[in-house]
Amino acid sequence: MSDQAEVAATAPPEATAAARRTVPVVGMIGAGQLARMTSQAATDLSIGFRVLAASPADSAALVCQGTRVGDYRSADDLAAFAAGCDVVTFDHEQVPAAALAGLARSAAAIRPGPAALRFTQDKRAMREWLTARGIACPEYAPVTTAADTGAFAGRHGWPVVLKAVSGGYDGRGVWVCGDAAEAAAVLAGAAARGIALLAEQHVAFERELAALVARSPAKQGAAYPVVQTVQQDGICREVLAPAPGLAPGRAAEAQHLALRLAAELDVTGLLAVELFETADGLLVNELAMRPHNSGHWTIDGSRTSQFEQHLRAVLNLPLGDPSPTAAAAVMVNVLGGDDDDLHDRLIHVWAADPGVKVHLYGKQVRPGRKVGHVTVAGEDAAALRDRATRAANYISLGTEEP
Amino acid sequence: MSDQAEVAATAPPEATAAARRTVPVVGMIGAGQLARMTSQAATDLSIGFRVLAASPADSAALVCQGTRVGDYRSADDLAAFAAGCDVVTFDHEQVPAAALAGLARSAAAIRPGPAALRFTQDKRAMREWLTARGIACPEYAPVTTAADTGAFAGRHGWPVVLKAVSGGYDGRGVWVCGDAAEAAAVLAGAAARGIALLAEQHVAFERELAALVARSPAKQGAAYPVVQTVQQDGICREVLAPAPGLAPGRAAEAQHLALRLAAELDVTGLLAVELFETADGLLVNELAMRPHNSGHWTIDGSRTSQFEQHLRAVLNLPLGDPSPTAAAAVMVNVLGGDDDDLHDRLIHVWAADPGVKVHLYGKQVRPGRKVGHVTVAGEDAAALRDRATRAANYISLGTEEP
Repeated sequence: MSDQAEVAATAPPEATAAARRTVPVVGMIGAGQLARMTSQAATDLSIGFRVLAASPADSAALVCQGTRVGDYRSADDLAAFAAGCDVVTFDHEQVPAAALAGLARSAAAIRPGPAALRFTQDKRAMREWLTARGIACPEYAPVTTAADTGAFAGRHGWPVVLKAVSGGYDGRGVWVCGDAAEAAAVLAGAAARGIALLAEQHVAFERELAALVARSPAKQGAAYPVVQTVQQDGICREVLAPAPGLAPGRAAEAQHLALRLAAELDVTGLLAVELFETADGLLVNELAMRPHNSGHWTIDGSRTSQFEQHLRAVLNLPLGDPSPTAAAAVMVNVLGGDDDDLHDRLIHVWAADPGVKVHLYGKQVRPGRKVGHVTVAGEDAAALRDRATRAANYISLGTEEP
Repeated sequence: MSDQAEVAATAPPEATAAARRTVPVVGMIGAGQLARMTSQAATDLSIGFRVLAASPADSAALVCQGTRVGDYRSADDLAAFAAGCDVVTFDHEQVPAAALAGLARSAAAIRPGPAALRFTQDKRAMREWLTARGIACPEYAPVTTAADTGAFAGRHGWPVVLKAVSGGYDGRGVWVCGDAAEAAAVLAGAAARGIALLAEQHVAFERELAALVARSPAKQGAAYPVVQTVQQDGICREVLAPAPGLAPGRAAEAQHLALRLAAELDVTGLLAVELFETADGLLVNELAMRPHNSGHWTIDGSRTSQFEQHLRAVLNLPLGDPSPTAAAAVMVNVLGGDDDDLHDRLIHVWAADPGVKVHLYGKQVRPGRKVGHVTVAGEDAAALRDRATRAANYISLGTEEP
């Protein structure tokens, strides 16, 4: 027999140390939206999950019980954070090599490991590694002077893309220079800040693709469908999954390339390979070893979200089914506009379209900043793109009819 | 130009009071697995979300930043909790009426309201309300003595189901009595504890169904596909979505009934109507006004999970598309077995079946306790049921081949 008093009297002591004995703790360095969405996946697995945040107001820190505040550039802070974790992984690739080395002295497994991460942090090393293996990339050369850059342009033409060898993301640290004068200004600025630069051929691509795969320490691999990404000012605006009209052979080539890179670089966790599709084939643009903007659609459009997949991979658990759950899915990022009241606009978006999935990141709105994304999954890719774009633009700006 | 130092120097002040100005705060009373899964949905909406937990080790308290500890039976604790919320809602129906009345004096909107909630807390009132409207239920009568119960059995036969009028859930507070001696023991126990009882006809149903709908203060309604539930010892073990072979007219009847009840009871949020399907039609068994075990499949099998739908409804936002994303989905609860190491068994389950979605609740394992659930979505309901049952049983017990 049971009544309310009895229910209360037998209320469980819950989640004791014994029950948690074998539950692993994953720590993620960084507390942006990637860590925030990973924390949602960690809840389903009932693992311990911690984030190393710069501030308690960081996107993931706002929702994650296991938030620790510290500096990802400090080897001491990283070591203290890692001491409570079984596995340490990353929401960004900004951790300096010296701090990573400190982390490597902790007992926690670092996944992906520093040897792999290096190729996301040093674009010159990445280009050299790929080129040595005959993997097609844009032409490139390290440059320090106007003469270097001019010689590169002489071989490959203007515009020339100048990139910071380290530290860039979301279009930061990338300058498309139309002529020698623009290049000179970038070179001068970089020299003043001690930033090493790489010149890259400005590729006349047909479109950009991304191949997202996961790999576990047990060497299992899993590949998501290859997607098309649409960038604007260096920031991902849209992802079309799968890439519309992509030849099956080309899609398989991209998946195999990403799985090969993951294996040869000994990646554990996710690897996103950003690609240029050109008339002559695929070129590797960038690598990321973490959940990636090109994979946000998987939350609402795949059996296994990229966030759960990353956790399964770094925990050396069997990888999840990466199959799509709909014929097509379109993700559009919500960028900050002039009005910070995103929530007030949800009513309009959802009244117009009850099937739009909205993910807001809790970040302060600033013009152009990624503050959320929307995904629509279904049958007709063109219609989905229209719906997702309309919803994202309305949340961003509040000026377009929802 | 951007380098790492500059990135750090311009690190966002994040989520200021201004940015949060119009973000509503929803508080959920109770911190079990329903609150835990609602908190995952709240993260996507970037609303404020709080739970009132009995202990920091409660399922939702383990993962929800906005945890407050207090007693749901205390009007003072409820008032203090509600003071920080725009909307208060519930993860269980155990809040005593007196405490609810205290809550109603706060400025927060109570959704569903006390007048509706009463019919989830007082089974006699629920039966009388339904009967007065001609809605088919099992035969029932309040009973206090062996003579009452014997008279009821004389009209409807043994066994007789005795139910606590208030305070039961998951089979607690329900006794199926095969004869007068068994009934007498229950009556004596209830009298000693001051528990009012209802006798109900033991319905020879063909199967159990559940109709889950949402309703908002704006009077919008949305109905999920009707599901079949399989109970064991009064606890939901399996949910088959949609109910296999259910006649379309019967499904529509169940959905319309649930939408009608939601409207006439002025429910805001979710309403789950548990039904018996009999040779003579549908009978209403129980009502719940919160996320419901019969709706867990929606996380992995519907465009809008029941947890997001409940938040949208109580926030008076337009309701989400309740369409399924696959032909069928099967959810099986993971019940505690003799071994508390659930996590260690995930590797076996996922190695055998990478498409099984696992949701663990972080609760201490006790035999028979709901500690998680698995869902499998796809085409063939019988195959899905086999996969989901195998996975759930293996996580529960560790004794069956995964």
